[in-house]
Amino acid sequence: MNMKGIVLFGHGSRNSDWAQPFHAIREVIHSRSPGTPVALAFLESMRPTLDEAIDELVKHGATEIDIVPIFLATGGHIAKDLPQLVVSAMERHPGIAIAVAVPAGESSLVIDAMAAYALKPQFDNN
Amino acid sequence: MNMKGIVLFGHGSRNSDWAQPFHAIREVIHSRSPGTPVALAFLESMRPTLDEAIDELVKHGATEIDIVPIFLATGGHIAKDLPQLVVSAMERHPGIAIAVAVPAGESSLVIDAMAAYALKPQFDNN
Repeated sequence: MNMKGIVLFGHGSRNSDWAQPFHAIREVIHSRSPGTPVALAFLESMRPTLDEAIDELVKHGATEIDIVPIFLATGGHIAKDLPQLVVSAMERHPGIAIAVAVPAGESSLVIDAMAAYALKPQFDNN
Repeated sequence: MNMKGIVLFGHGSRNSDWAQPFHAIREVIHSRSPGTPVALAFLESMRPTLDEAIDELVKHGATEIDIVPIFLATGGHIAKDLPQLVVSAMERHPGIAIAVAVPAGESSLVIDAMAAYALKPQFDNN
């Protein structure tokens, strides 16, 4: 039986709070689709790495993995760094169908939400 | 009379296509709120700068300016670089009320949209 897992792939930051929205996205996915395993992964400064995230999903029984870049747009990290990581992950897991999605920031869903937010933004983080 | 303008403040990239979602966000804002002037601004690698964007909005009659960081979360750029730019902008435009919003990626609107996208992502940019 096929089971799809999702990797939310982000840039990472030395500021540990930076990952909070990524955890929040994972929570929303869990509430909407409780059976879908979701792992975070980061390019730099944070763990897990993409390899670690994929290993974890495979351990949980995933046979297909969607890597969803939580990036605002396609820059060098998505155009150059991520494809190299994905090739290496495919070689380590030849039986798993790994696909890389368009960055979230390029989707109309997210663009519309950004626009709605910009018209009525929050000014305090507490 | 007060007129509010919006700056969509992004990181910038050497990849010129990177700014496309920012233009798309501006278009959506224009369609929802045609009277609100919106300018893009970038921290690095792209123009206009924050100063240039604010000058443009002031020229168009803005008396209040919301700077909305189109960032996924608060890292060093938002915690350190942006406040310095804002202090300098406030000094150049003492009559203008300038406020800095929480980064778009930390809003529940955007987090929900990211989660919805991750459950049904696009795999081709064309």
